[in-house]
Amino acid sequence: MRDFSANHAALSINTATVRKQWTLDRIIEECAKREIRAISPWRDQVAQVGIDRVEQLLRRTGIGLSGYCRGGFFPAADTAGLKAALEDNRRAIDEARQLDAPCLVLVVGSLPGALSGKPLYHDIARARSEVRDGIAASLDYALQVGMPLAIEPLHPMQAAERACINTLEQALDLCDELDPGRTGMLGVAADLYHIWWDPKLGEQIARAGADRLLAYHVCDWLTPTRDLLNDRGMMGDGVIELKKTRSWMEDAGYAGFAEVEIFSEDWWSRPGEEVLDTCIARHKTVA
Amino acid sequence: MRDFSANHAALSINTATVRKQWTLDRIIEECAKREIRAISPWRDQVAQVGIDRVEQLLRRTGIGLSGYCRGGFFPAADTAGLKAALEDNRRAIDEARQLDAPCLVLVVGSLPGALSGKPLYHDIARARSEVRDGIAASLDYALQVGMPLAIEPLHPMQAAERACINTLEQALDLCDELDPGRTGMLGVAADLYHIWWDPKLGEQIARAGADRLLAYHVCDWLTPTRDLLNDRGMMGDGVIELKKTRSWMEDAGYAGFAEVEIFSEDWWSRPGEEVLDTCIARHKTVA
Repeated sequence: MRDFSANHAALSINTATVRKQWTLDRIIEECAKREIRAISPWRDQVAQVGIDRVEQLLRRTGIGLSGYCRGGFFPAADTAGLKAALEDNRRAIDEARQLDAPCLVLVVGSLPGALSGKPLYHDIARARSEVRDGIAASLDYALQVGMPLAIEPLHPMQAAERACINTLEQALDLCDELDPGRTGMLGVAADLYHIWWDPKLGEQIARAGADRLLAYHVCDWLTPTRDLLNDRGMMGDGVIELKKTRSWMEDAGYAGFAEVEIFSEDWWSRPGEEVLDTCIARHKTVA
Repeated sequence: MRDFSANHAALSINTATVRKQWTLDRIIEECAKREIRAISPWRDQVAQVGIDRVEQLLRRTGIGLSGYCRGGFFPAADTAGLKAALEDNRRAIDEARQLDAPCLVLVVGSLPGALSGKPLYHDIARARSEVRDGIAASLDYALQVGMPLAIEPLHPMQAAERACINTLEQALDLCDELDPGRTGMLGVAADLYHIWWDPKLGEQIARAGADRLLAYHVCDWLTPTRDLLNDRGMMGDGVIELKKTRSWMEDAGYAGFAEVEIFSEDWWSRPGEEVLDTCIARHKTVA
């Protein structure tokens, strides 16, 4: 297993972690100052600054991407909605290419309308079928342009609104169905916040193998957790066995970044400098 | 599939649903008034009224049990704690027998101390191993006295504090390990709130079969869900496909009660009469 204690060369910052403190240009500058080598930005943050300017800033600072957030949200109210979702995913793939991302992360979506409290239907199997078709269509384009898609299983507590893919096993089953040849163009983003609890986690990470393990996200699960969305913990402050899981990832061949993604009203309320410095310190000690 | 529209003969009320309105003696009276045939009481509610008096009330009203809540919480800080947990489970089995329950429901526990925000260790595999041993020991006694144990998989959002058994598959794997002969003395409580999201739900219900399906709990998953514990919905107010799931249960041979268990600050704030009347109405229409 890699030794993270000497430096933070393997650290990436998902830019949602400091989204309430800074715009993306400032985040890139602050990461550069701290010799953080990679980030994973969100599309709305990129759009706010302008993608060409983000591209320039990345080139100037030498910072790379560990992923691009995000495509997905395939299920829709009607045919027009499904078509719009596919077009939007194509644009996300193009943006990921422009910024030289190693993958586009997919939060696949679930019951249409559920996010605003008004689900149009309750048939989660239908949503799963629409997700399957949406990924299949996006994969066609991803293969043409060479941009890997990383399906992110989301915690079951977000199954109604955000993602109807909720376990690593389910995500890998879909990868095997849509990409039986293991082209390297379809895999998973293993975010421990969502999957740490899974009794089959070790087994499924081993099954995935290096060509399916496209991204690795870390933070921590707090006890108690006070909010279903925005109460994630800093690494070391919760119960997730980070090192044990990383050893499983590395045994399976993963050699990429450990990307810190913390949605937290607590950490968003602190100075961005403190957040980044803490990410570095915890990366070197507990991740 | 059974037709629930004509009457509510298959309805059971988990007494936590109205625990903030009434003590257990009043709950039994109110259920009797409404011709509700079964309840599933909690140990603290029984203790408050006195188990002999509860037994008398049940006999007088003709109300039966659909389960007894609850045993479990096996992992502990030390050997003395583990021993105390086993003794407490034995007492729970004895109480279930006195009240003629068809099963004792097990909420198995997880990281010791996590419930009070101070987990003593983070090794969930260790907790799972202690749970396995605890159920094995309790099963010995359950077999002697003839009281079936129903393992309740809890939602993964409660994996750190309340139960490290989080899917039906995991619970059934444990049943197969500890009770390979399918004695009828070890099975599962299928609470849809905890397992509705599972992509393997239908498959695992079919696998379980009638002799493992010891209890069936219903309520609903709200969008949004505002609290990890006490924001469950009344049947029909959320996204769970109740009838589809019940058809799977009945196809697998389940012919027991549909037990309503709603932990909800909202429903606890309403008159108990309204809650019970709504349970009956929804049972007949959407469950």
